[in-house]
Amino acid sequence: MADVAGLEIAGVALGSRLFMGTAGYPNQLTLLDALEAAAPSLVTVAIRRISLDAYGGSLLDELGGRFRLLPNTAGCATVRDAVLTAELAREALETNWIKLEIIGDRETLYPDAEFLLQGTAALVKAGFVVLPYCTDDPVLCRKLADVGAAAVMPLGSPIGSGLGIANPYNIERICAQSAVPVVLDAGIGTASDAAQAMELGCDAVLLNTAIARAHDPVRMAGAMAAAVRAGFDARGAGRIPRKFHAEASSPELGLIGA
Amino acid sequence: MADVAGLEIAGVALGSRLFMGTAGYPNQLTLLDALEAAAPSLVTVAIRRISLDAYGGSLLDELGGRFRLLPNTAGCATVRDAVLTAELAREALETNWIKLEIIGDRETLYPDAEFLLQGTAALVKAGFVVLPYCTDDPVLCRKLADVGAAAVMPLGSPIGSGLGIANPYNIERICAQSAVPVVLDAGIGTASDAAQAMELGCDAVLLNTAIARAHDPVRMAGAMAAAVRAGFDARGAGRIPRKFHAEASSPELGLIGA
Amino acid sequence: MADVAGLEIAGVALGSRLFMGTAGYPNQLTLLDALEAAAPSLVTVAIRRISLDAYGGSLLDELGGRFRLLPNTAGCATVRDAVLTAELAREALETNWIKLEIIGDRETLYPDAEFLLQGTAALVKAGFVVLPYCTDDPVLCRKLADVGAAAVMPLGSPIGSGLGIANPYNIERICAQSAVPVVLDAGIGTASDAAQAMELGCDAVLLNTAIARAHDPVRMAGAMAAAVRAGFDARGAGRIPRKFHAEASSPELGLIGA
Amino acid sequence: MADVAGLEIAGVALGSRLFMGTAGYPNQLTLLDALEAAAPSLVTVAIRRISLDAYGGSLLDELGGRFRLLPNTAGCATVRDAVLTAELAREALETNWIKLEIIGDRETLYPDAEFLLQGTAALVKAGFVVLPYCTDDPVLCRKLADVGAAAVMPLGSPIGSGLGIANPYNIERICAQSAVPVVLDAGIGTASDAAQAMELGCDAVLLNTAIARAHDPVRMAGAMAAAVRAGFDARGAGRIPRKFHAEASSPELGLIGA
Repeated sequence: MADVAGLEIAGVALGSRLFMGTAGYPNQLTLLDALEAAAPSLVTVAIRRISLDAYGGSLLDELGGRFRLLPNTAGCATVRDAVLTAELAREALETNWIKLEIIGDRETLYPDAEFLLQGTAALVKAGFVVLPYCTDDPVLCRKLADVGAAAVMPLGSPIGSGLGIANPYNIERICAQSAVPVVLDAGIGTASDAAQAMELGCDAVLLNTAIARAHDPVRMAGAMAAAVRAGFDARGAGRIPRKFHAEASSPELGLIGA
Repeated sequence: MADVAGLEIAGVALGSRLFMGTAGYPNQLTLLDALEAAAPSLVTVAIRRISLDAYGGSLLDELGGRFRLLPNTAGCATVRDAVLTAELAREALETNWIKLEIIGDRETLYPDAEFLLQGTAALVKAGFVVLPYCTDDPVLCRKLADVGAAAVMPLGSPIGSGLGIANPYNIERICAQSAVPVVLDAGIGTASDAAQAMELGCDAVLLNTAIARAHDPVRMAGAMAAAVRAGFDARGAGRIPRKFHAEASSPELGLIGA
Repeated sequence: MADVAGLEIAGVALGSRLFMGTAGYPNQLTLLDALEAAAPSLVTVAIRRISLDAYGGSLLDELGGRFRLLPNTAGCATVRDAVLTAELAREALETNWIKLEIIGDRETLYPDAEFLLQGTAALVKAGFVVLPYCTDDPVLCRKLADVGAAAVMPLGSPIGSGLGIANPYNIERICAQSAVPVVLDAGIGTASDAAQAMELGCDAVLLNTAIARAHDPVRMAGAMAAAVRAGFDARGAGRIPRKFHAEASSPELGLIGA
Repeated sequence: MADVAGLEIAGVALGSRLFMGTAGYPNQLTLLDALEAAAPSLVTVAIRRISLDAYGGSLLDELGGRFRLLPNTAGCATVRDAVLTAELAREALETNWIKLEIIGDRETLYPDAEFLLQGTAALVKAGFVVLPYCTDDPVLCRKLADVGAAAVMPLGSPIGSGLGIANPYNIERICAQSAVPVVLDAGIGTASDAAQAMELGCDAVLLNTAIARAHDPVRMAGAMAAAVRAGFDARGAGRIPRKFHAEASSPELGLIGA
């Protein structure tokens, strides 16, 4: 985990440990209000090759003026498709940062580990700052960093599932050994999940569905921002150990009559 | 759960949903700083009959001047002992509020359900506002409210264990059906546990060991206060359902090229 | 846990650590086949005051000829009702054994701890061998044994829920300290739950819905009997500790080339 | 999951769904007794290049005469090393079956997904029947089958950890979609873990440390064999659904007085 003062990826200081996606909001106003409520330091946007020339652009301009954008390759299933999408994104959004998504399974939207390694290597070579969305596999995360990933973004559970962190053991291990920042991506359902990610040692959390599809997205955005800070501070504060026997707080150490 | 605006117990509006204990801190200064960082609306203090006349009183005066005190009967194992302790507390601290603890097992410090019902009834009759520390048993919680408890305080897991909420099903059920406020008491280890308690529907959380024995109690106090608010807001915001199949956030709903 | 050789309750040796209920089967033939497949040492039957004189009796005769019957007071919500039902059962079935159920909540069917203590004491005084269905509260279990219960039957989770053992910590604690046999009752969904109950230290498991409402009750009955034995033997065999770091089985200790 | 009658890998019918490792036993007699108690259909042995010519061979001859041996490449960290080890195994043990292990992390002993794909493809091409030990990644498992693996062997948790199945969601998904048999490998601690693996849909379970290092390995071997059968039958029998509200078994469906 980076030190308390702040998070840095590829030499860029990021003022918040919460990143947000922009998809699935009931409308643009709610999206903008949610962004304002949570104040993320990175905002992901989906690039899709086919229709890029068709979008209006005004929302994108507005977002780009206020947030650091992180284009992603959502929907890509091959290395070639992902690389092409990344290049389109670089041209359209004038950023060499890319969240690399290469989906290996249409149902779970799980990433393809092998293709991620190839895609990351290719994009790093082409000058990109690459943040791959990956499985919670400590060996994969290490190898992604070895080929140049600027951060790794392991999943907690399937995208949009709200199941939280299915395997805390793996996330903790990835954080403990990673040479680059670790961003928990996918699966978060509610505030306690986000806090837990930080307590396990993650450097940041990326949220989309949990906010966008909450009953009140703006209120949830604020809750998530507070939860990320709470989890980060709780980790920094050093939690008590888990004990399988009770330990009296009051009797031996009562304020009165000690 | 009480409405968003605030928590009320026995007609008294409480400005925060975090309550704190005062035992086990490394020193008084840390305790005071932690209280300042978390700003609890109730502060529990342990009353023990034998040595009540021996305490200096200056710390207690300072606490009493800044916080609403909630004396507790920690260390009592019989109804008679608990009632006597409550009466001493009322006299010494000039409050008729009492957190009723009657321990049924020295090792787990689990409460005795049967004695709690008797003790609550006796103290209510004697004019007390009674908040019993109890098991996570929905039937017991209902019966405690029936005999006049002003709130119920079910445990998450054993006191000081840091194991979090062992049985979220029971806590959620207690919250869903309770006619009085529900305060999660005991077992919290870190911020995500406190957030989860609020997400399950608790009206407040009482914390002692998780703050007092953290490596940095003051920082943990702030983290816990943020976590309680995050959990409360996340519940109010209406979380997404848990799904056992992934749901794409980006592809179908991409910001660009929709 | 009783020793390996066998389970004894109230001085009676029971040849199996699986008990079965008889309700909810698709038909009598399936019930009888399931009983044969699992060979339980106790079979519970529900007694209800109102219609006792209306039953035909042939099934009951058949069961009574082949199994030790354990009548229960299912459906009772007061001490008085449970005691009356127990007395009817004793007369009708010629057994002084009774599974005491006193329900405190119609939705969860959770037992009422306070009434169980009163009911157990009253029935013990009246000469019954009492096995109360209770919550997973270690203090309650101890007090039930103190007033004369011949065994305690804590729940894993709500009756018929199939949620398994919601709070393994409590079940393990109850087993570790109990002066009488502990029978896990309610909540089991599948074979691994039954094995886990035995691994936590239970002396036996009582199953009804998990078998009766399985797609193939007879096959599930056999699976459960195997699982109970597996869990009992696994506990007796002494499991390896849980480690949060991997330990090579092969490399250092390879069969070949050591 | 293969049908009830039996498990088949690469056209070979295997009479048991329990596979066993041979490392870490207190002595050879205990190993042989444990094998007899559990009657596995495959027995893994570790091949290590350097000292292959040094082993005595009598134990190996005895095992080979009674069990189908499955040599493994434990200790290998590169594709090249694993392929060489497999070739040595084929020569020494006269079998073209190989359990492919390529370790990517010395501390967790987690496999390297990328190398496994390469190694599996190379060994299949060289005429081996390949069973790779892999992560619980559904995409990796599909790709391993695509390049010719005869079965996939996802981990439950780290080797020797006894932590059980860390991510049941992933194991269930792998089983639901796999075109080849799924063998749960690594992490099992006790009987209920083995039963759970089968309930999630695994075709078989491979056990080593949980038996070898139990206090009584022979008794644990028997417990595990019973647990695997119990889990397999429980899955076949069709378990009841999990419900978050209780459902009375007795009152509405009492045997007596319906």
